[in-house]
Amino acid sequence: MTSYECLLPVNGGWKNDVTNWLSEDVPSFDFGGYVVGTDQKTSTLLMKSNGVLSGVPFATEVFRQCNLAVEWHFQEGTYIDVSKSNNCKVSVATVSGKAKDILLAERTSLNILSRASGIASASSKIIGLARKSGYTGIIAGTRKTTPGLRRLEKYSMLIGGCDSHRYDLSSMVMLKDNHIWSRGSITNAVIDARRVCGFAVKIEVECQSETEADEAITAGADIIMLDNFEHDDLKLCAKSLKQKWVGRKHFMLECSGGLTLENIDSFLCSDIDIYSTSSIHQGVSVVDFSLKLDH
Amino acid sequence: MTSYECLLPVNGGWKNDVTNWLSEDVPSFDFGGYVVGTDQKTSTLLMKSNGVLSGVPFATEVFRQCNLAVEWHFQEGTYIDVSKSNNCKVSVATVSGKAKDILLAERTSLNILSRASGIASASSKIIGLARKSGYTGIIAGTRKTTPGLRRLEKYSMLIGGCDSHRYDLSSMVMLKDNHIWSRGSITNAVIDARRVCGFAVKIEVECQSETEADEAITAGADIIMLDNFEHDDLKLCAKSLKQKWVGRKHFMLECSGGLTLENIDSFLCSDIDIYSTSSIHQGVSVVDFSLKLDH
Amino acid sequence: MTSYECLLPVNGGWKNDVTNWLSEDVPSFDFGGYVVGTDQKTSTLLMKSNGVLSGVPFATEVFRQCNLAVEWHFQEGTYIDVSKSNNCKVSVATVSGKAKDILLAERTSLNILSRASGIASASSKIIGLARKSGYTGIIAGTRKTTPGLRRLEKYSMLIGGCDSHRYDLSSMVMLKDNHIWSRGSITNAVIDARRVCGFAVKIEVECQSETEADEAITAGADIIMLDNFEHDDLKLCAKSLKQKWVGRKHFMLECSGGLTLENIDSFLCSDIDIYSTSSIHQGVSVVDFSLKLDH
Amino acid sequence: MTSYECLLPVNGGWKNDVTNWLSEDVPSFDFGGYVVGTDQKTSTLLMKSNGVLSGVPFATEVFRQCNLAVEWHFQEGTYIDVSKSNNCKVSVATVSGKAKDILLAERTSLNILSRASGIASASSKIIGLARKSGYTGIIAGTRKTTPGLRRLEKYSMLIGGCDSHRYDLSSMVMLKDNHIWSRGSITNAVIDARRVCGFAVKIEVECQSETEADEAITAGADIIMLDNFEHDDLKLCAKSLKQKWVGRKHFMLECSGGLTLENIDSFLCSDIDIYSTSSIHQGVSVVDFSLKLDH
Amino acid sequence: MTSYECLLPVNGGWKNDVTNWLSEDVPSFDFGGYVVGTDQKTSTLLMKSNGVLSGVPFATEVFRQCNLAVEWHFQEGTYIDVSKSNNCKVSVATVSGKAKDILLAERTSLNILSRASGIASASSKIIGLARKSGYTGIIAGTRKTTPGLRRLEKYSMLIGGCDSHRYDLSSMVMLKDNHIWSRGSITNAVIDARRVCGFAVKIEVECQSETEADEAITAGADIIMLDNFEHDDLKLCAKSLKQKWVGRKHFMLECSGGLTLENIDSFLCSDIDIYSTSSIHQGVSVVDFSLKLDH
Amino acid sequence: MTSYECLLPVNGGWKNDVTNWLSEDVPSFDFGGYVVGTDQKTSTLLMKSNGVLSGVPFATEVFRQCNLAVEWHFQEGTYIDVSKSNNCKVSVATVSGKAKDILLAERTSLNILSRASGIASASSKIIGLARKSGYTGIIAGTRKTTPGLRRLEKYSMLIGGCDSHRYDLSSMVMLKDNHIWSRGSITNAVIDARRVCGFAVKIEVECQSETEADEAITAGADIIMLDNFEHDDLKLCAKSLKQKWVGRKHFMLECSGGLTLENIDSFLCSDIDIYSTSSIHQGVSVVDFSLKLDH
Repeated sequence: MTSYECLLPVNGGWKNDVTNWLSEDVPSFDFGGYVVGTDQKTSTLLMKSNGVLSGVPFATEVFRQCNLAVEWHFQEGTYIDVSKSNNCKVSVATVSGKAKDILLAERTSLNILSRASGIASASSKIIGLARKSGYTGIIAGTRKTTPGLRRLEKYSMLIGGCDSHRYDLSSMVMLKDNHIWSRGSITNAVIDARRVCGFAVKIEVECQSETEADEAITAGADIIMLDNFEHDDLKLCAKSLKQKWVGRKHFMLECSGGLTLENIDSFLCSDIDIYSTSSIHQGVSVVDFSLKLDH
Repeated sequence: MTSYECLLPVNGGWKNDVTNWLSEDVPSFDFGGYVVGTDQKTSTLLMKSNGVLSGVPFATEVFRQCNLAVEWHFQEGTYIDVSKSNNCKVSVATVSGKAKDILLAERTSLNILSRASGIASASSKIIGLARKSGYTGIIAGTRKTTPGLRRLEKYSMLIGGCDSHRYDLSSMVMLKDNHIWSRGSITNAVIDARRVCGFAVKIEVECQSETEADEAITAGADIIMLDNFEHDDLKLCAKSLKQKWVGRKHFMLECSGGLTLENIDSFLCSDIDIYSTSSIHQGVSVVDFSLKLDH
Repeated sequence: MTSYECLLPVNGGWKNDVTNWLSEDVPSFDFGGYVVGTDQKTSTLLMKSNGVLSGVPFATEVFRQCNLAVEWHFQEGTYIDVSKSNNCKVSVATVSGKAKDILLAERTSLNILSRASGIASASSKIIGLARKSGYTGIIAGTRKTTPGLRRLEKYSMLIGGCDSHRYDLSSMVMLKDNHIWSRGSITNAVIDARRVCGFAVKIEVECQSETEADEAITAGADIIMLDNFEHDDLKLCAKSLKQKWVGRKHFMLECSGGLTLENIDSFLCSDIDIYSTSSIHQGVSVVDFSLKLDH
Repeated sequence: MTSYECLLPVNGGWKNDVTNWLSEDVPSFDFGGYVVGTDQKTSTLLMKSNGVLSGVPFATEVFRQCNLAVEWHFQEGTYIDVSKSNNCKVSVATVSGKAKDILLAERTSLNILSRASGIASASSKIIGLARKSGYTGIIAGTRKTTPGLRRLEKYSMLIGGCDSHRYDLSSMVMLKDNHIWSRGSITNAVIDARRVCGFAVKIEVECQSETEADEAITAGADIIMLDNFEHDDLKLCAKSLKQKWVGRKHFMLECSGGLTLENIDSFLCSDIDIYSTSSIHQGVSVVDFSLKLDH
Repeated sequence: MTSYECLLPVNGGWKNDVTNWLSEDVPSFDFGGYVVGTDQKTSTLLMKSNGVLSGVPFATEVFRQCNLAVEWHFQEGTYIDVSKSNNCKVSVATVSGKAKDILLAERTSLNILSRASGIASASSKIIGLARKSGYTGIIAGTRKTTPGLRRLEKYSMLIGGCDSHRYDLSSMVMLKDNHIWSRGSITNAVIDARRVCGFAVKIEVECQSETEADEAITAGADIIMLDNFEHDDLKLCAKSLKQKWVGRKHFMLECSGGLTLENIDSFLCSDIDIYSTSSIHQGVSVVDFSLKLDH
Repeated sequence: MTSYECLLPVNGGWKNDVTNWLSEDVPSFDFGGYVVGTDQKTSTLLMKSNGVLSGVPFATEVFRQCNLAVEWHFQEGTYIDVSKSNNCKVSVATVSGKAKDILLAERTSLNILSRASGIASASSKIIGLARKSGYTGIIAGTRKTTPGLRRLEKYSMLIGGCDSHRYDLSSMVMLKDNHIWSRGSITNAVIDARRVCGFAVKIEVECQSETEADEAITAGADIIMLDNFEHDDLKLCAKSLKQKWVGRKHFMLECSGGLTLENIDSFLCSDIDIYSTSSIHQGVSVVDFSLKLDH
């Protein structure tokens, strides 16, 4: 299998982000860099709490921009159980170069890996539980990402095994109550959206009832978000829609929110194709990392 | 009291960040904006979980850049208990302008407020407990902030009542084991640091023993980080240092890590001037917000 | 109907493009601006050859950044026949402000309108002929746009009544021979693409035969590009695919290239959902505009 | 002869343009890149319609930024007749590197070469005809270039053998009717322009009559644009001016517009030093290129 | 006479420079701004040493970006003698707005005005002396400007009454020994330069002897820099060239370096059209300004 | 001793500044570069007036971005007396690469070195005189730096042996009359400042009397700026403060302005810890450099 790193273009925007993140830490002078100097050093990147390793190409770019060589000892996406290791620390990479450059890269690379691995770990946990409960559909994140960090966070959802959902307002159209009110009907809203988004972009419609869902499907919606249903009603509506339209229209059903690690067994239903939840990326715990110079 | 908003310059970098955060959400076209159109609308910004409101000037800038008017109903820094409200939702602001512009601003402003208020809430909680336990010193955050978001996160620590600690590598010098090894002694490291950072910047030295602390204080360190001490040893060392140097040298003592909401009563000691912890900002829970168009 | 201008976010990237376009024309000093001075003037924006007016929000932004007021006399998307007018010139807008600012805005605004209207005109012409010939499907552009100008050019395809096709490599997946060879089969390539693009993004597969098309449809491709077919074979294959899969799988058929204004009557076939062609935007003639100060 | 590539500084602005052009095509993830993977590949850059090869350093920079090696088989500026080749395709370069990086570079590099070679071809054609008709003067382009692409387009005029005319508002002063009205006379306008542009920058004045031309020449204009003359009057005026001022004042005569491939024989006149026309770059046909992975 | 401010485009690059200059002073928080608060204040911009006021539009832009109103009491270019004033301080402008915004704008605006007025003053002084000595030609600056500040510094040379000389490598061609050696002869170098710079750009050639100057003039050079001449030889050569070529070729003569305020009377010679010197802008003394809040 | 070059991060902002400085010199084409071509050449960087060499890493970055190799023959910070050399020129570095790239780098690198070395030389001179007069305290620069060039200028103060003083508004708080008036008292202003700047940032208070200084010291100010004192009063006040507070509070005393090379012997007083003066960097003479291609 190809590395997910291939999703990131060899050139461009995300590398500038890394430059900015490093600059954020040194607006004028690096006084500590002067003190520690330019001796050639090797350092060990340690993972210190359990989780799924994520953010590798972003951290690698930090090291590259700091003129450091890095050798990773695990593949991105690996779940690492630190409890089995010496001092609960696992060496995930070796980083070498000038002492001052290692210390410069330290904080930014660790901040990236902590957050990315936190998201991948939460994503991995929930998809694992879902599969264990027999659900074969999609669990997806949301657009509730940290401002400026969407690429890293959506990437980490993928690393953890979840779907990254629509990336932004340009890559899928989501029609909610306001869009529909504005156009007078679901049908009109879908027609208007299609006029501008064209054939290449999917349209999702948020529906409050089976009747609304029928209208949206008829109008050509690609995905139906069932919103504001009582839980049992949701399952019934989903089943009914799937049966009613089989062989006539193609669509997917999505349900958003409410899913937790605790209720997952009873919550998931095979007629719902996609469960989306910000709980796999927003406000999740970080994974602990440190970078230590070898002596 | 002046609003903390005055910390942000009227012009410059942080406003460009807001522009980039908005652009991240619309790389090409805003299809939904076309559907919803340009009718003049009013919307309500709702807080949906308990916490301290933070991020107001950043969200205000989102609204401003989207040509929206905003009226805030609470002062930044206010703790809001939503459980006492209708449906557990409190209206914290009214936002008005074109429908498409409100929907464009929605996700970015909410993502900002959720994270900022999450940090302010965690900061407020810990400082509250510390004060309750009788500690009058400083509780500070760390540089373990989200890449690209340090300004918002340090700002939110202040809103929550904590100290934001050194902002970056340029604004205080921190000498750790590697710096000291590189220069041969704590004394040499402090001298070298002072040569470049000058009189205007503070120097902190990480010390593993009272002897090291004595050397650092003698060399002119402004702050001593007591590192790797057993807890009781830490208290003894801190007391000893404060007594030994009184009237001769001015310095502050810092202790990093280990502090939790649970152990806070027994942990804090009045001879330590600063406790720093990333637990008030890294991986903290978010506060829930939504923005609803009025009908 | 909402204006297509709503597709452009009120803030962000495309406005910076306009700033850069203006800066490109004055790297140091505007000597002519000094000579002409700051007298308040009114000017007339004249269209001087037939075509569909496009690029209005982009030109408006040029005028706004130059502190000029503009009043448009036609709606964007209108076909204007200048031959019926005095001197073959139609006033499409009135622009007023300081003389030096009008002259500064002149070249950039005209260059935008000329190209944008050229693309809208070519798009409008071909879709008009297609409709006249009875074809009700989609005619779409391509990614063969001018570097740095994709937003303006895709926008102008929409203004002209065509589909803008996939915007970039992130907003729809196109699997061609190289992707398929790399993965061993169409099926594998589609599975691998879906793993990363998720449910929100469409997948198109380029197929050289009906057998390949069948495999792609089975694997879940959203769109089938029939490539390298003799023209009659294309029609037969399209018809066969549509009949074979009806009621079982949903997909669209695309044919790329070969379409001209001359062959359009015999070329189009109702079983092909999308004809894509760069002829509506790449290397098209421009529409002639000028901006004259009134005296 | 030195390569025209030397006109482009080794560092700076135009390389950032290339970065932005590549980023325009991948706002978030490169899904196709993930599918095609990182196998080392060689590809052939094919020219598929007749023309003059241009844009080589810009395309080379695309390949460089994508970590690709490129070997060009023709010198920039060469006219290539594809009709003599196999399948009407001529291999103009070999590009090698990772499969995903080749596909990433493909569209941007082709879009650059198509447009640049289109302009060079049109420029080459007209200057060839002019020389054939015995005209030894200058044929120049205009500032009617594509926003953001002036460097590439002016460069391609040079590759095709034409003059690129003034680059921008800062590099030559052009005084038209508005400037003159504003200052009261041609003489005043020239004096005022010279005050700010200094000795290093040329001044051109648009004149409607021989009297105006005489005034402009007397005032020190470097170039006289004869505007709005009937064609025979233009020739008479040009001849008269050249004879009248010989040995007293140095100036050049320019005529703008009206020149076409069809009328060129009768249009050109040896007393006019410069004919400028946007027809060599604005709205010209593109040259067709493709990039194919070798198997 | 139009204000020189008209040389600066209403939009673009130079305004971004101002933004960056302000940001340079506040990388994170403006602590002083928090302390001083948002009370509405008026402040007085005082000039405290003699000189020519310059940099007004740049300082105005600082105030504008800081939401401040400014009223200037002198026209840019005015020589102000502070010795005649109370306390040797002259109020040149009144600036009003929020206290914190005034203090934010203070340092950047003063740094701009000090340097700009220093250059204008030095330029004004030398051109005044030159005119007094009877010289009617041009005194020009050089490209030895402060990195990033060329626009402000060239602008200030103009304000002071000098010529700003060529702005950059793109706006006039200067052929020196290396260019000539590379091409084998002055003639070849001029021909090659003209091929790429076209008719719109001037060519200057540095010549070590009258023979070289004759060759350069014959080849079509617009300006001859007489370099490395003994002073009397320079005058003789200049006179000889002017007489020899009168009525046949148009060119200007430049002499660079050596000019000082002390030797100016004997140095200048009417056959030299241009004397260029970095002494009017590089390393010149600044003019002293301060900004005081009124109470 | 580590090189001061270590103060500059290996990646980031200051390297972009260098890119912009180079771009400032070539907005469109480098015509001279075309003429001189790509022959491999060696050149000599000559220092032509006495001074302390500074700006080496910035000039090195110019050469690196221009693909040039550079070998420095002196360490940064060395005082070079050119009068002892042949023709008063000392070769400080050898630069090699393509002829066109050397000429491109020439002006920008020289402009950097001239200014940086000018500041280092002035700084070195004053600190040398101060030491000779027996003063062991600090001589520091100010924030009166050239807009956009603060890093280079503060760096050069360090190279010359002076203190660079506070870098910007974020890295030390300076409370002046306006801040104090705004808060009602020095005590309140210090408390308010400390609330936001935290323990990591120093606070300096400008005091007009010993009483004010006592209040500031009591309130916790780190540095006291004694302002507006008659010279003898200053010395008396400084002495009194130092004696009064010994063993109770730690603070430093600063005096700003008035120091010149002429009065230095009588001016300096050992009770003042810091003398700050813009005379070491603002409007200082430059050091003369040139870059000559070897033949």
